[in-house]
Amino acid sequence: MDAAVARPLHIFDTTLRDGAQREGINLSVADKLTIARHLDDFGVGFIEGGWPGANPRDTEFFARAREEITFRNAQLVAFGATRRAGGSAADDLQVKALLDSGAPVVTLVAKAHDRHVELALRTTLDENLAMVRDTVAYLRDQGRRVFVDCEHFFDGYAANPAYAKSVVRAASEAGADVVVLCDTNGGMLPAQIQAVTATVLADTGARLGVHAQDDTGCAVANTLAAVDAGATHVQCTANGYGERVGNANLFPVVAALELKYGRTVLPEGALAEMTRISHAIAEVVNLTPSTHQPYVGVSAFAHKAGLHASAIKVDPDLYQHIDPELVGNRIRMLVSDMAGRASIELKGKELGIDLGEDRALVGRVVERVKERELAGYSYEAADASFELLLRDELRRGAHGGAEGEAPSRFFRVESWRAITEDRPDGTHANEATVKLWAKGERILATAEGNGPVNALDRALRVALERIYPQLAKFELRDYKVRILEGRSGTESTTRVLISTGDGDGEWSTVGVAENVIAASWHALEDAYTYGLLRAGVAPVE
Amino acid sequence: MDAAVARPLHIFDTTLRDGAQREGINLSVADKLTIARHLDDFGVGFIEGGWPGANPRDTEFFARAREEITFRNAQLVAFGATRRAGGSAADDLQVKALLDSGAPVVTLVAKAHDRHVELALRTTLDENLAMVRDTVAYLRDQGRRVFVDCEHFFDGYAANPAYAKSVVRAASEAGADVVVLCDTNGGMLPAQIQAVTATVLADTGARLGVHAQDDTGCAVANTLAAVDAGATHVQCTANGYGERVGNANLFPVVAALELKYGRTVLPEGALAEMTRISHAIAEVVNLTPSTHQPYVGVSAFAHKAGLHASAIKVDPDLYQHIDPELVGNRIRMLVSDMAGRASIELKGKELGIDLGEDRALVGRVVERVKERELAGYSYEAADASFELLLRDELRRGAHGGAEGEAPSRFFRVESWRAITEDRPDGTHANEATVKLWAKGERILATAEGNGPVNALDRALRVALERIYPQLAKFELRDYKVRILEGRSGTESTTRVLISTGDGDGEWSTVGVAENVIAASWHALEDAYTYGLLRAGVAPVE
Repeated sequence: MDAAVARPLHIFDTTLRDGAQREGINLSVADKLTIARHLDDFGVGFIEGGWPGANPRDTEFFARAREEITFRNAQLVAFGATRRAGGSAADDLQVKALLDSGAPVVTLVAKAHDRHVELALRTTLDENLAMVRDTVAYLRDQGRRVFVDCEHFFDGYAANPAYAKSVVRAASEAGADVVVLCDTNGGMLPAQIQAVTATVLADTGARLGVHAQDDTGCAVANTLAAVDAGATHVQCTANGYGERVGNANLFPVVAALELKYGRTVLPEGALAEMTRISHAIAEVVNLTPSTHQPYVGVSAFAHKAGLHASAIKVDPDLYQHIDPELVGNRIRMLVSDMAGRASIELKGKELGIDLGEDRALVGRVVERVKERELAGYSYEAADASFELLLRDELRRGAHGGAEGEAPSRFFRVESWRAITEDRPDGTHANEATVKLWAKGERILATAEGNGPVNALDRALRVALERIYPQLAKFELRDYKVRILEGRSGTESTTRVLISTGDGDGEWSTVGVAENVIAASWHALEDAYTYGLLRAGVAPVE
Repeated sequence: MDAAVARPLHIFDTTLRDGAQREGINLSVADKLTIARHLDDFGVGFIEGGWPGANPRDTEFFARAREEITFRNAQLVAFGATRRAGGSAADDLQVKALLDSGAPVVTLVAKAHDRHVELALRTTLDENLAMVRDTVAYLRDQGRRVFVDCEHFFDGYAANPAYAKSVVRAASEAGADVVVLCDTNGGMLPAQIQAVTATVLADTGARLGVHAQDDTGCAVANTLAAVDAGATHVQCTANGYGERVGNANLFPVVAALELKYGRTVLPEGALAEMTRISHAIAEVVNLTPSTHQPYVGVSAFAHKAGLHASAIKVDPDLYQHIDPELVGNRIRMLVSDMAGRASIELKGKELGIDLGEDRALVGRVVERVKERELAGYSYEAADASFELLLRDELRRGAHGGAEGEAPSRFFRVESWRAITEDRPDGTHANEATVKLWAKGERILATAEGNGPVNALDRALRVALERIYPQLAKFELRDYKVRILEGRSGTESTTRVLISTGDGDGEWSTVGVAENVIAASWHALEDAYTYGLLRAGVAPVE
């Protein structure tokens, strides 16, 4: 862990705090924990988790993160404001909440624009400086590392450079480790950021960071311009999520630092996980990953022009600025070219199944994955469904690759039905019936639930629990629905992702169909099958 | 017209040529004509229409544009390659097609990277220079204005600066008006672009342009960096469409030049049309306009945090870098759980409903929003549902705030039912029945669909279309499902967001319930109610 936080250049992620301000993002505590794990895997140095005290969900996040996550690379950061005007830091409830969060690092937001101090904070310029000094000093006394975000720094600097710099000095002299110059309204261009950062560095000697918003479409360049001027701390969000247009996007910033500047800012091997992690975080926040995001978009290395295609046959580097594998992405010449042999082999290895020797098997898996992805499947966030697909193919291989060979399953479904009914009194009834075969027996079961999928889930349990008592421990943990081809409303294809746990671990499955109930059913089938395999039960069908 | 093409800084649009390389874009001649009209309205100086001769559609485009469009601001540009190695420009069929297009301006693409000359063009470095000189001189003789795109200029400059510069000199000396330095692979950062452009300008004295691709996420900044270094011609595409990640986005480039640099690059009043034109072009290419695009995205001036909202009431400029009206966009307050009284008032104003005077009403709305958001509603992306809530409260206020006062609706639902059935052959049947009252009549309707929600939607239409024929135009555009409280699987609350259009506009509604079918139903009810209100139909229930 020390490596990342002691690095000469900090990668500071604020997806969970500032990123959550993006329109359409609404994170549960569980979502935040999952994203924090992804960010730690990626190897950022600092993860700003939220504003404890201001928001009960954020308070809970810090408590649970402390219990549930062992960070390998990152330190958690709590965000909050300086003490109130006229008060003391030690008596400030909001400052107390920052300490109570248990986070080893605190980011304090401070006003650096004279007009904001007067209009929004309604206090004097001197009192604002005292608020910064007192709060930083108090938190340092309490053993915290402190960063100070100077809000509206660049606009403030334009209006009153002396005052803006005095806020930087106050923070730095009181013991802040980094003072972050924020382009809060996002209106700056790189040349301005670079000039101001260089001047402030020369005039104050403080360690500087940068926080850029993307309102001019220059947040990545603005971040790099500050680094060029001597900033050694960059604040970003995954996929550029953030208020209004968004924040500086973590991924192109890190890629530029590693690949263009030649600086090591991530642990060994982490950059090659970038595409996967970008997409995984998009799944958690339930936004379609941007197809045209630099480095990690599925189109980022896609070539359409015939001119390019023939040149690429000569030498791929003629038309790409980096080898896409460096960031875990891949070149695409055709729309259908989704899954590569190499990635299937790597994925198999990751699941403990070595496919390296059997070229025919790998070929068959590649074909099946392609065919399924064309139909709307996505195995990126559904390891368990992918493993079932792989095991089916392995088993088919062991039987001489016979086409008719049935996959290894625990039950065979004959049919099912789900009814949802709205009653005149406004309540709803949901009833599901399943008809299936297990261990040679035909079983019918009906159950009710609070929704049609829940009713199907219960009916499936009722049907199978007598034969497979292990099922009793299975619990649906998460359920996500994504409509594909968004412009055609409910007539589109539906993809459902389900996470299931057994108290001992969690696994994810995917189902795709023309409607949400059928897609959920497919994901449920995979979830139960995988759970039983996992529990060591031998397939019987 | 002369004003734009004689301007000291050229705005050169290549949406129709390079932009069309974007994955998923496939433009008909009619599409290209429509986009050309929008670009001319916007006031760009040059519109690169395509590669006549290489592509029959492009040849037809130039022929029809000449007949059908009277450009007010722009000149049409034909794109093509220099003559073939070993031939003469006058005998080159491809060069002839450029002349035949009738375009007054020609952009020639030339290789400027020694390795590309050898590997892709398979000729000598000297012959490549001769190809540039001959073709430029010949086209000038024929009365054309000529621009030369130096492909892979920056990579070529890094490998062999002397040769890269000799291509610039060859083009300029032969009579090219502008020599464009292209970052074809998009791997550059602003500092590199600026340094190289400044050196080339000093060493060659040629008039320079810039063409940036967005592979590092810096295309806008790269374009501006070249301008800072003395380039006076910028090549961009509408909405940043283009190969791989895309090209420099016309809109933030122009906005930065006009609003940040204070340069006049558009006709009077055109900047205020930018948001409309961006969205109109997205419609023509059939891509959803990016909600988070700088300046023109619907989220570009959207504010979520309560902290920001109260500051914005004091002075909107505290949290926005420009007045959104300058670019034809508007401020939007997102009604979210972070929202207070201030954001509700601003939101009401945005919808044309002034709540400022009635403090009790605002208080009731805040309470209802909070209560609903606690139940899982989110009005952030559901303006229409929020407006219905607001109108219900207004109406209740008008009746003395009586609790029992019914909201203004067009129909009253008695009950509904949806059945999804999986048959032994693997197909699914979906059937829905609705029972409702409208204009004093009890109506029963049943319909099938490809999923339960689709079946409900159709049944609702069947039931209501006779009474409200306006419904026939409504079309479901997008459908999003979000499961709340992710750790409890299918027993959680479900939120559904629906976008509906009537060919004339689009509106968004939200529904929340314990299951996806019921939530979808609520969102559908709001969608139909709002659509009828919008169509000017008077409520009858």
